[in-house]
Amino acid sequence: MAEDFPVARLESDAWDAVTQLAEHRLPGLVVTDASGRPVAILPAAQVVRILVPQYVQDDPSLAGVLSESMADRVAEKLRGEKVSALLPDDTPELAVVNHDDTIVEVAAVMARLRCPLAAVMENDRLTGVITASRLLELALRQ
Amino acid sequence: MAEDFPVARLESDAWDAVTQLAEHRLPGLVVTDASGRPVAILPAAQVVRILVPQYVQDDPSLAGVLSESMADRVAEKLRGEKVSALLPDDTPELAVVNHDDTIVEVAAVMARLRCPLAAVMENDRLTGVITASRLLELALRQ
Repeated sequence: MAEDFPVARLESDAWDAVTQLAEHRLPGLVVTDASGRPVAILPAAQVVRILVPQYVQDDPSLAGVLSESMADRVAEKLRGEKVSALLPDDTPELAVVNHDDTIVEVAAVMARLRCPLAAVMENDRLTGVITASRLLELALRQ
Repeated sequence: MAEDFPVARLESDAWDAVTQLAEHRLPGLVVTDASGRPVAILPAAQVVRILVPQYVQDDPSLAGVLSESMADRVAEKLRGEKVSALLPDDTPELAVVNHDDTIVEVAAVMARLRCPLAAVMENDRLTGVITASRLLELALRQ
């Protein structure tokens, strides 16, 4: 049930990874280590956190104080960064499923972790990704 | 910054709304009342919960016990349901932004609520939706 999906490595360029997410309207990013093992699955709603300065994350009321021109340049901090800079400080549980899991099993993982995509593994190897919208499409078709 | 985006009413057919989400690979659903006021914004990762029987939500270990043929028919329970059936029991805070908010303000709301889309309001009227991937595209372009 896996679908073609771009994967970003920890050492890849963060700007390129976020551009890919934005241009292809992906629900998130699958991040792997150099050996291709998934280390993080970042929903798009988590990736946008990179646009929010730390002092606004600490005190959201300060977001309105930023001028539009300052806000416009927030993406600049992605320049020269690696994908690893997109990862949160804590390491959340990975949304990982097995290639032979049922639709219900995959849906249960996504719903529990509130993650719109899951890495699909076969024999400990990443074989693809499944998104929530693709899962719904499969469920409706049956 | 809002984009065209389908909106589902509480009284609309749930099957149709989920089909639209799946076919257009939407990151979620904006649900409004009869007057067009947003009442819920459901990330796709939350919509898939409808595929998970209550007893599996209560005890995820039971997901593996479901046979593939049973799991195949989970979408059937959407037949004849209204969009309101997709809503969670609790009413989570709405991801709502103003049409003149900055990119940082919108990103802060999405990140805090872990919601990949936000309703865009102007004078208390829903004028559109912005998705996390669209927000990233806007930020990168500047």
